[in-house]
Amino acid sequence: MAKKRLGNQTIELENSPVIISACSIVGPKEGDGPLKDYFDKILEDDLFGEDSWELAESKMVREVIKMAIDKTDYVLNQVDYIFAGDLLNQLMSTSFAVRDLKRPFFGLYGACSTMSEAISLASMIVDGGYSDLVVAATSSHFCTAERQFRFPLELGNQRPMTAQWTVTGAGCSVISSSGKGPKIKRITTGKVIDRGITDANNMGPAMAPAAYDTIKTYFDDTKDEIESFDVIATGDLGIIGGQILLEFMQKANYDISNVYMDCGIEIFDHKRQDTHSGGSGCGCSATVFNGYIYKKLLNKELNKVMLVSTGALLSPTSTLQKQSIPSIAHVVVIEN
Amino acid sequence: MAKKRLGNQTIELENSPVIISACSIVGPKEGDGPLKDYFDKILEDDLFGEDSWELAESKMVREVIKMAIDKTDYVLNQVDYIFAGDLLNQLMSTSFAVRDLKRPFFGLYGACSTMSEAISLASMIVDGGYSDLVVAATSSHFCTAERQFRFPLELGNQRPMTAQWTVTGAGCSVISSSGKGPKIKRITTGKVIDRGITDANNMGPAMAPAAYDTIKTYFDDTKDEIESFDVIATGDLGIIGGQILLEFMQKANYDISNVYMDCGIEIFDHKRQDTHSGGSGCGCSATVFNGYIYKKLLNKELNKVMLVSTGALLSPTSTLQKQSIPSIAHVVVIEN
Repeated sequence: MAKKRLGNQTIELENSPVIISACSIVGPKEGDGPLKDYFDKILEDDLFGEDSWELAESKMVREVIKMAIDKTDYVLNQVDYIFAGDLLNQLMSTSFAVRDLKRPFFGLYGACSTMSEAISLASMIVDGGYSDLVVAATSSHFCTAERQFRFPLELGNQRPMTAQWTVTGAGCSVISSSGKGPKIKRITTGKVIDRGITDANNMGPAMAPAAYDTIKTYFDDTKDEIESFDVIATGDLGIIGGQILLEFMQKANYDISNVYMDCGIEIFDHKRQDTHSGGSGCGCSATVFNGYIYKKLLNKELNKVMLVSTGALLSPTSTLQKQSIPSIAHVVVIEN
Repeated sequence: MAKKRLGNQTIELENSPVIISACSIVGPKEGDGPLKDYFDKILEDDLFGEDSWELAESKMVREVIKMAIDKTDYVLNQVDYIFAGDLLNQLMSTSFAVRDLKRPFFGLYGACSTMSEAISLASMIVDGGYSDLVVAATSSHFCTAERQFRFPLELGNQRPMTAQWTVTGAGCSVISSSGKGPKIKRITTGKVIDRGITDANNMGPAMAPAAYDTIKTYFDDTKDEIESFDVIATGDLGIIGGQILLEFMQKANYDISNVYMDCGIEIFDHKRQDTHSGGSGCGCSATVFNGYIYKKLLNKELNKVMLVSTGALLSPTSTLQKQSIPSIAHVVVIEN
């Protein structure tokens, strides 16, 4: 077995790469939610001065990376790799954003799991000695996602109570081989899990089994204690999916309910903001992690965190072809 | 500077991960082309027994990974990571393929650059000691790409002479920390380059500047000799893009014309097969590398190869919004 592996699916980062900086940008609705004080920038309008929502999302990616680097002693030109992706077909917002940044780029697609996918790969590359400075970023935008995955916004389509609300936001972590900040310790990479859910308006239940599989595997692989965590944060299972995850974990004798949170549940005030089962989108765990959780790690309110971004890998084509929803979740463990 | 770096964008793999096995599956048209004797499997019909072209592409990915593993002494369950992606929205063919393989998965999107993107990341993860067995795979399908990016096939739309023909095919490399086979030595990761080309029917010229940038950077970073290569193979610049690359390289005093080939030029007999400027798609460099080039490396007809898969990161949405075509190319150097 390769020397840095632990159990079946987990690796240990011997050199503990550091998240030396993190940054988040959100839209007006997210900036009106319960976590508003933790975001670095709140847009006044979701076009961000651009001609289309797609270009606005792209601008968020570009700006969040620049702002995250500006918080460090480095300049953009010293970044060796950008690991990034988004929900749009052919990663439109990311591709156009990194074009202007002129740094080597690995494009990723993990649906809403992209934040922990990007941090996983970025940390391994730094830990392995291939770079001292890497960026991991992702984004989503309510308006680009709605028209791509669902209906034109102009239609004013009614949404079922199981639906989630795609977060308008972008988040970025800057990962370095040295410096001050919380450290990335372990990574458990998820498998694609599909339990046969076909309702694209109810993605929490599709993703919960994937989150369950990767979180349980982490504890099986490492023999770590649930109680040692201050927070176990899933990406965007929402109210329905989060409940299913907790039940699955309890049935397997892993009760995480005392330390559990879901970024999609925390980001909105669901009754007041009419967001139904919760927030979703790559930008959901990206902004909650790089905004809220990172700041709590910095001020030591939190000292050991598991981030589990969760992704539903469906497409409009697969839905039309009556396929079920494959899902994935990646675990990243961060400690002070 | 991180210890494994060389110059600006290049890394050296100290432990030289080995490509212990490679496999390719192609469609009937590719199986009628000049490289037909090098592919592991040629489909009799491009639906591959499935109900849709998307599901057929997905089956190609699943089968090519299984076949590549079957050629080794390992079983699928010993694979630590699958690095894979395709051209379809939300990586439909890859997501559904890896669902059945039940191994940890990193989804990638680099358009037609995905083969060298996947090999790059897979090799770093093996070289860094995180795994002893990783798979890198990608695919494309003429019929899924045409209807997603261009027109319904039923329309029988006429194609300009600058257009390229998306390869129906999937390729897979199995990369290990030990074993017999050609070794991955160096990686130069590309930046997104955009010189303002807007014609989605002429992608060679959009991608040529990206290939030029990464290849030139490799030689600047390493001081390696062009003459030491048996082949420098771009992914799918086609006849027009390939000519532009050679001119760019010559003007910069890097004459690669003696060792240059383009997978998109080699895979079809363009006059007889009516493929205009050449083959394209993730499956193009994937099948030519894992079929033709890998077998030539094994029998020592080739001993030092640079693979430069090239990707045009446009989307139908970006084209409708009058955006130009961002492109990227990644260099992987393989030696016996």
